[in-house]
Amino acid sequence: MAQEQITLYTSKVCPKCQRTEIALAEAGAPFKRCEISLLIKPEWFAPKVNRANQIPAITYGGPDVAPENPSPESTKLAESLILVEFIGDLYPSSGIVPADPVLRAKARFFVEIVSTKFSPDFKRFVFGNPETTHLALLAGVNAIQNILPDSGKYAVGDQYTFADISFTPLWARLIVLLQKGIGAYKDEERGSFWKAIEDPKYAKFNGYVQRLLERQSFKSTFHEDIVVEKFTKKFGLAK
Amino acid sequence: MAQEQITLYTSKVCPKCQRTEIALAEAGAPFKRCEISLLIKPEWFAPKVNRANQIPAITYGGPDVAPENPSPESTKLAESLILVEFIGDLYPSSGIVPADPVLRAKARFFVEIVSTKFSPDFKRFVFGNPETTHLALLAGVNAIQNILPDSGKYAVGDQYTFADISFTPLWARLIVLLQKGIGAYKDEERGSFWKAIEDPKYAKFNGYVQRLLERQSFKSTFHEDIVVEKFTKKFGLAK
Repeated sequence: MAQEQITLYTSKVCPKCQRTEIALAEAGAPFKRCEISLLIKPEWFAPKVNRANQIPAITYGGPDVAPENPSPESTKLAESLILVEFIGDLYPSSGIVPADPVLRAKARFFVEIVSTKFSPDFKRFVFGNPETTHLALLAGVNAIQNILPDSGKYAVGDQYTFADISFTPLWARLIVLLQKGIGAYKDEERGSFWKAIEDPKYAKFNGYVQRLLERQSFKSTFHEDIVVEKFTKKFGLAK
Repeated sequence: MAQEQITLYTSKVCPKCQRTEIALAEAGAPFKRCEISLLIKPEWFAPKVNRANQIPAITYGGPDVAPENPSPESTKLAESLILVEFIGDLYPSSGIVPADPVLRAKARFFVEIVSTKFSPDFKRFVFGNPETTHLALLAGVNAIQNILPDSGKYAVGDQYTFADISFTPLWARLIVLLQKGIGAYKDEERGSFWKAIEDPKYAKFNGYVQRLLERQSFKSTFHEDIVVEKFTKKFGLAK
C-alpha cells in the first residue's frame, strides 16, 4: 500500500510544509519534491493540485508523472495536519500515529492546544499586531507545558508523534526569528520573552523543545538561511 | 480494550455533545450518561473532569464510580471531534474511522470544511450577526456539496463516518430552527434560504442531508423539544 507514488508540493520557508516533510522523513517514505513559491503559485497549481491554492499538498498514487502535470488518476490531498496523519497511517511502524487510541486522542488534544493557544499569538507576534506581547507567547508556552506528560520525552510519551510534528516547525521559526531580531514585534519584547522563558519553572518545556530541535527529521528539513532571508524581506527587523 | 468504562458528560441541547452520542450509538458502546447544563456547570466539573469547563467530555477506564466523583485513575478526554475519532478507534468495526488511509484523510478534510466553511456562519446566522445572510449559509452548503463524492451515500462513500457525524447535529439544528423561525436572523432570510436550497442544483446535497437525518444513531440522540425550548429562550423568534 505504501508503495504508491507521493509527490509533495512544498516550500522551504513554510512551517506547515515542514510538518509534512518531517512526517515523510520520520516514515522514511520516498517522494518527489516540488518547490512552490508561497507567494506566487504557478497557474497550473490550483486547477490541477489544490483548488484552495495552498501548500502543502500532495498527489498520491497514479502513474509516475512530472509534478507540474499531475495525473487525474492520483488522489489530491491537502492541509498539513491531515497530510501528517495520512503519512503516519500509510507507515504505521513510524509511530507518527500512536497505535493506542488513548494516546491518539491525547496527541489530537495536543495539536488542538498548539493550534488554538500557541499558533495564533505566534503569528500575531511576528506580524506585529500591537496587542501581542511576549506575555501572549508565554501564555501559549504555559498551555503546552501544562499538558506535557509527567514522564516521557515528547508530547504524549517517549514516541515522537504527529503531536510533536505539529509544533516543531513553529517553535524552530520563533527561535530563529527572535535570535536574529526578525519580525514586526518591538525589540524589547524579545528580551522580555528570553528572560521569562529562562525561569526554572519552564524547565520541562525547555527540555521538551530542545529534544524537538535535536530530531534528525527536523534538522534535515529545516532551511534556516532561507527562513531568515524570506522573513527579513517580509517583516524587517524588530524596532 | 473497548471494555473499559466510559462516562459521558453531555447535554441534550448541544450539537457537539450529540456528535459524541452519535458515535457511541454507532459503535454500540455501553456508557454512563451524565447530563450537564451548558450554561451552569456544577462546581466539581472543571477540576475533576475538564479544566476547560466544556462539554462534551468523557472519563475512560478506571473503576466504576458516580459521574460526579470521577476516579483519578480514569483518563479524561475532551473536544467533540477528538472524542468521536477516539470512539471510532476503540470500535474499529463501527466504520466510524475508515480503515483506508485515503478515506481517513478525505474524512478529515470534510470535517475541516464543515468547521471552517459551514459552522462559523451557522453560528453567526443564529446569533444574529447582521452581516450573515442566507447567502453565507448557502456558501457553506456549496462548499460541502463540492466535496461530496460522485457516488456513495455519505461524505466519503457508502460508509457513515466521523465526517458525517461532525455535520449531522449542526444541520439538524439549522433545519429545526428555520422551520420554527427561532434565531436572531431576519425572518425574510429563512424564506430566502428555503427557496435557494430547493433549487435542483442542490439535489446532491439535499439527498445527502436527508440520509443523515434518517440515521437511527441520529434519531435516538436528537431531542427536538429540548432544542426548540432552549434556543427559543436564548434567541427568541426571527423578526
